[in-house]
Amino acid sequence: MAVKQRIRVGGRSARIQSAVHQAVRRLSAATNRDELTVPQIAAEAGVTPSTIYRRWGDLSALLADVAVQRLRPIADPEDTGAVASDLRVFIEQFMEEMSSPVGRALVRDVFSPSGETYPVQCGGFTREHLTTIVSRAKARGEAAFDIDEVIDHVVAPIIYHILYGDRELTLDYCHSLLDRVRSLPAETARPVRAPSLRANGSRERAPDDTAAKNLRLRRD
Amino acid sequence: MAVKQRIRVGGRSARIQSAVHQAVRRLSAATNRDELTVPQIAAEAGVTPSTIYRRWGDLSALLADVAVQRLRPIADPEDTGAVASDLRVFIEQFMEEMSSPVGRALVRDVFSPSGETYPVQCGGFTREHLTTIVSRAKARGEAAFDIDEVIDHVVAPIIYHILYGDRELTLDYCHSLLDRVRSLPAETARPVRAPSLRANGSRERAPDDTAAKNLRLRRD
Repeated sequence: MAVKQRIRVGGRSARIQSAVHQAVRRLSAATNRDELTVPQIAAEAGVTPSTIYRRWGDLSALLADVAVQRLRPIADPEDTGAVASDLRVFIEQFMEEMSSPVGRALVRDVFSPSGETYPVQCGGFTREHLTTIVSRAKARGEAAFDIDEVIDHVVAPIIYHILYGDRELTLDYCHSLLDRVRSLPAETARPVRAPSLRANGSRERAPDDTAAKNLRLRRD
Repeated sequence: MAVKQRIRVGGRSARIQSAVHQAVRRLSAATNRDELTVPQIAAEAGVTPSTIYRRWGDLSALLADVAVQRLRPIADPEDTGAVASDLRVFIEQFMEEMSSPVGRALVRDVFSPSGETYPVQCGGFTREHLTTIVSRAKARGEAAFDIDEVIDHVVAPIIYHILYGDRELTLDYCHSLLDRVRSLPAETARPVRAPSLRANGSRERAPDDTAAKNLRLRRD
């Protein structure tokens, strides 16, 4: 009895959430995502379908919740020593992750018709990263960029093309967007060395391998 | 018999599509969209649920199909006599429609996990409108704008904020995006009169009324 009393409120709830999220990720990896069903996820997680309906409402809300968890930042953007390269490396990585097959599915999943808060959370993650880069710049005594400008003219076009699937996203394209950011200090806008990617802009790693190595897309 | 033979192949299929689409629109208007179910739509349309599953696969694909139909252009952008004002009026109307409650729901519905083609079609509608404005400019002997630039730096931020719900979309914001379009002839970028909206940027009409009057969001 003493032991039981020490189990915190929400412990069972947290275990259910974890089991269901893990079931979605295992099934998403193994089967066609379009064919996922609530009963199938419930069976995989060892809960009843009604537990899932009660907690999430429907499949799309559950998928949105899982997507938000996986898109949640687990590390700060890389510190390259200067604001322009911090931003460039972050945006290159953001584009690479979000345009991978896993990333594209997560970006879409967030827009469940039954949850207004999921997209707001995800937009907030990107803003947090940019805020970190700006704070770091200020601490160094550098001029920083305007976060809204970067969201409108760099992040938004990347997300737009991922969602509408109407153009290939290349490093050159990514740099052309960054070149238009008026508030970014010009003299350091393009350092010689690109720490996380080859100088010729080629992708060396396969998409799955990329997902495994990146810092921000959660794997479990 | 002679009459029957003259009914074209696909007639029944087209009638089913029309009945189901109308049922979705009636039910969406009357009830909370999150609570729509396939059996409910089937009953309203007078078909069996299996007819819907066979044809669309699942609810999200059906909602995406309905959204694409409603977002499909039914008229060319307004001809104001000059490329800069054609673009401005089109973008003002696009922002107004897409950020209305009906528009926001349609923009989201397009991203069904089970249909890659729906978003591609919708992105294509916007591009078609911009292409019409550019062709008209060329016919007048005007310099035209770069369509990709307008999509990246005007359309994409508007859609981003609609989807992520992270900022209010005002006419001033809309104009600040247009002001950044480098390829737009500068001298005509801001005519004195805004044909479709009040000069002070206020929205005079209620959202539902707006949806009723606009040219591009289909009502039936």
